[in-house]
Amino acid sequence: MLIREKVNQAVQLLQEFELDCWITFVRESGIMRDPMMDFLCDSDMTWHSAFIIFATGETHAIIGQMEKNTIDEMGVYQNVTGYVEGIKSHLHEVLQDHDPRTIAVNYSENSEVCDGLTHGMFRVLRGHLAEIGFEDRIVSSEKLTSALRARKTATEIDRMRRAVGHTIDIFGEVSGYIEPGKTEEEIAEFMRQRVRDRGLVVGWDPTHCPAVFTGPENKGPHYHPTELVAERGHVLNMDFGVKVESYVSDMQRTFYLLEEGQSKAPADVIKGFNTIVKAIELAKEKLKPGVLPVEVDKVAREYIVSQGYGEFPHGLGHQVGRFVHDGNALLGPAWEKYADKVYQPVEENMVFTIEPRLRVPGRGDATIEEMVVVRKDGAEFLGKPQKEIILI
Amino acid sequence: MLIREKVNQAVQLLQEFELDCWITFVRESGIMRDPMMDFLCDSDMTWHSAFIIFATGETHAIIGQMEKNTIDEMGVYQNVTGYVEGIKSHLHEVLQDHDPRTIAVNYSENSEVCDGLTHGMFRVLRGHLAEIGFEDRIVSSEKLTSALRARKTATEIDRMRRAVGHTIDIFGEVSGYIEPGKTEEEIAEFMRQRVRDRGLVVGWDPTHCPAVFTGPENKGPHYHPTELVAERGHVLNMDFGVKVESYVSDMQRTFYLLEEGQSKAPADVIKGFNTIVKAIELAKEKLKPGVLPVEVDKVAREYIVSQGYGEFPHGLGHQVGRFVHDGNALLGPAWEKYADKVYQPVEENMVFTIEPRLRVPGRGDATIEEMVVVRKDGAEFLGKPQKEIILI
Repeated sequence: MLIREKVNQAVQLLQEFELDCWITFVRESGIMRDPMMDFLCDSDMTWHSAFIIFATGETHAIIGQMEKNTIDEMGVYQNVTGYVEGIKSHLHEVLQDHDPRTIAVNYSENSEVCDGLTHGMFRVLRGHLAEIGFEDRIVSSEKLTSALRARKTATEIDRMRRAVGHTIDIFGEVSGYIEPGKTEEEIAEFMRQRVRDRGLVVGWDPTHCPAVFTGPENKGPHYHPTELVAERGHVLNMDFGVKVESYVSDMQRTFYLLEEGQSKAPADVIKGFNTIVKAIELAKEKLKPGVLPVEVDKVAREYIVSQGYGEFPHGLGHQVGRFVHDGNALLGPAWEKYADKVYQPVEENMVFTIEPRLRVPGRGDATIEEMVVVRKDGAEFLGKPQKEIILI
Repeated sequence: MLIREKVNQAVQLLQEFELDCWITFVRESGIMRDPMMDFLCDSDMTWHSAFIIFATGETHAIIGQMEKNTIDEMGVYQNVTGYVEGIKSHLHEVLQDHDPRTIAVNYSENSEVCDGLTHGMFRVLRGHLAEIGFEDRIVSSEKLTSALRARKTATEIDRMRRAVGHTIDIFGEVSGYIEPGKTEEEIAEFMRQRVRDRGLVVGWDPTHCPAVFTGPENKGPHYHPTELVAERGHVLNMDFGVKVESYVSDMQRTFYLLEEGQSKAPADVIKGFNTIVKAIELAKEKLKPGVLPVEVDKVAREYIVSQGYGEFPHGLGHQVGRFVHDGNALLGPAWEKYADKVYQPVEENMVFTIEPRLRVPGRGDATIEEMVVVRKDGAEFLGKPQKEIILI
C-alpha cells in the first residue's frame, strides 16, 4: 500500500533532516487539499485534523469522531483519536507527551507542493501551540515534504512508466488521424476519445489537455485547442498526458504537414526539430544526482541560442508525479518566479520532463517533451523518445 | 456570466466593508485552488498570479505571459498584464499607483472557504509588500469573501434549486429499488447510475456520495456504503446530492423497511421520525436575516433532547454552494471546531441545510436534511420537504 510506504519514508526523512515531528494540519480537505494528504490518507477530512509523525516512528491521527472508522480501517496510524468538539486538547496531549524540539509544518515560499498549510490554519495551529509554550518550535517541513514527493518509490515509477506508454501509443494513433483541414479542437477530441476508450482520464485540466497548436498563428502553450485549421506546411505540436492510478505523464510531440510534392520536411523545419532533439540529449546527459537544475536548463538554453533561435520563455523542465507540475527542484533559469527551485540539487529517483521549444518562423513551434527518471549514474527515458519529426 | 456578476458584487462589498483593495494571490491553482478563484477566473493559473480589485471598481490581473490570452478573452479584467520572469515589479507598480490604505487577502481562522492563501504565499506576498513599505496594510478579506460566497445571486440559487430537484427525483427512484437483502453498496450504486443517466455527477466525494446507512449497526455519517444488508425492521437513511453547473445539493431522507404483517412503521420509529420533522420546522421558523446561527441550532437541539433523545453530534446545518460545506456562518453549537462561524449573523440569500439526527434504539438513525434559502421574511425550502417516512 502506497500510503504505508510513504509514511515509512517520512519517518526516515525526519531522521535524515533531524526533525523531531511533522504535523499535517488540515480541515475540509475536499475544498483545498494539502498536497501531502495524498501520502497520508486515502480520503478527505472534514474537520480540523492532524496527522502527526515522530522521528521515533510513532504515528498519530487526531480527527473528527465521524471519520474515525475510515482512518482506523486504513491501518496506517498507531494512534487514532476521534473528537467531537475540538482538536486542541488532544493535540496538546500528544505534543506534551513527546516534547519535540522541532515541529515541522507544511509551508514553503519556494514550492506549491510543499505549501499546503493555509495562512488561517497556520494561525490556528500557532495559537494552539502558544498555549503550551511550543509556538517557537514551528519550522517549515519543506525539505521533508520535498524529498517525500520527489524521491519516487518503485511503485510510483511503475505507474508513471505505464502512463508514458499510453501517451506514446495515443500520439501514434492521432498521427493517423491528423490531416489538412482538421481543426485543433477536432484533433484534441480524437485524443480525448482515445483516452476514454482506455478507461483513463487526461493528465491535467481537460480544457487544455491535450493542447494542440498548429502553424505560425498558434496561441502558444497553456491555451485550449481552437478552431485553427491544420494546413499543409504547418509545424503542429501537442502537449498531452494521461493519469494511471493517480500518477500522470506529460509529453509533447512535433508533426509536420507535407506540402504537395514534398516527401520530407523542408530544411528550416528539420533544423529546428533537430536542434530540439539535440538540446534534450545535452540536458539528459547533464541530469545526474547532485547537479543543480539551473545548470541543466543552461545547457539546453545556450545550445538553442547558439543555433540562432530565441530563448524558450519557460523553464526547461519540471518534476512530475501526482500532479503534472509536482515537486520543488525545477530545471529552469534563475528567474524570480522559480524562487530557489532551480538551486535544489537533483536526486536519485526524481522524475523530470525535458521540454525545450523554439519557433520556426512562418511554420510554427518545434517542441518535444520527454520524461526521464534520474538514476544513480544518470537519467533514463521513461518511454521511447521522439527522434524524427512525424510527417503527415 | 457568473464571474462578471461576482466581480461586480466584490466591488460593492469592498465599499460596504470599507476596504480599499482585495488581492487573490495564487500559484499552481490546479494543485491547491483558493476557493475564491471560482468567482474570479474560469481556469487554473500556473505561475504566481494576482487578481486585484479596488473599491473604485478598477480591476487588474497580473499573470504569467503564457496565460494572458485566456484571461484577456474572459473580458472581465480592465487591465491584464502578462509577465515572463516574475510578478513583483508589476505588483509594486499597480499598488503604488493606487496607494490603498488596506489590502485584503484571503486568510481566515474561522472559515476554510475564506482561507485560500497558503502560509508560504502569504510570506511571499508580505515580502513583496515590505519592499514598498506596504506590509502593514495587509488585512483579512474574511468579511468580503464570506459575503461574496454566502449572498447568492439569482443565477446561483436557480442552479441549486435544479440540483435539489434532481436529488428528490432520485430519492423517489431508489425507493422503488430498495428491498430487504440489498446491501448499502448496491443501493448506492443504483443511485450513482441514476446520476450518470442524467449526465450529472454526485455532489461530493463519490466514495461516500451517496452515503447509505441501514439498521442499528450502521457506521454513521461520513462513511462509505458497506456490505451491510437492509433488513425488515431497519430504519435506513441516505445522504446524497448532485452537482448542476458547479453548484451542489445536499439532502437526506429516511426510509423504514416494514416487517411481515406491518402496514405502517412502529410507534418508536414514527416518534423518532416526527421529532426530526418537527425540529426542522422549528429551526426553519427561527432562520431569518439577523438571527445568530447558534440560536437556530439550539431550537432544534433542545427540542430533540426534550423528546428524550441524545443530542446530535454535529451542527444542525451548513451553507451550501459550489462545495457541499460552503460558507462561513454555520448553524451549530458553540464548539471549538466551529470557531466563530456560529456567531456570524444570518443574511438574506444564504442557502443552508437543516439536518438534525437521532437514534431509534435497535432500529437505526432517523435523519432528514432539507435545503432552504433565506429570504427577507424567512426561510423557504428549495424543494418539497420530507414529511412522511418512506415505507419499503
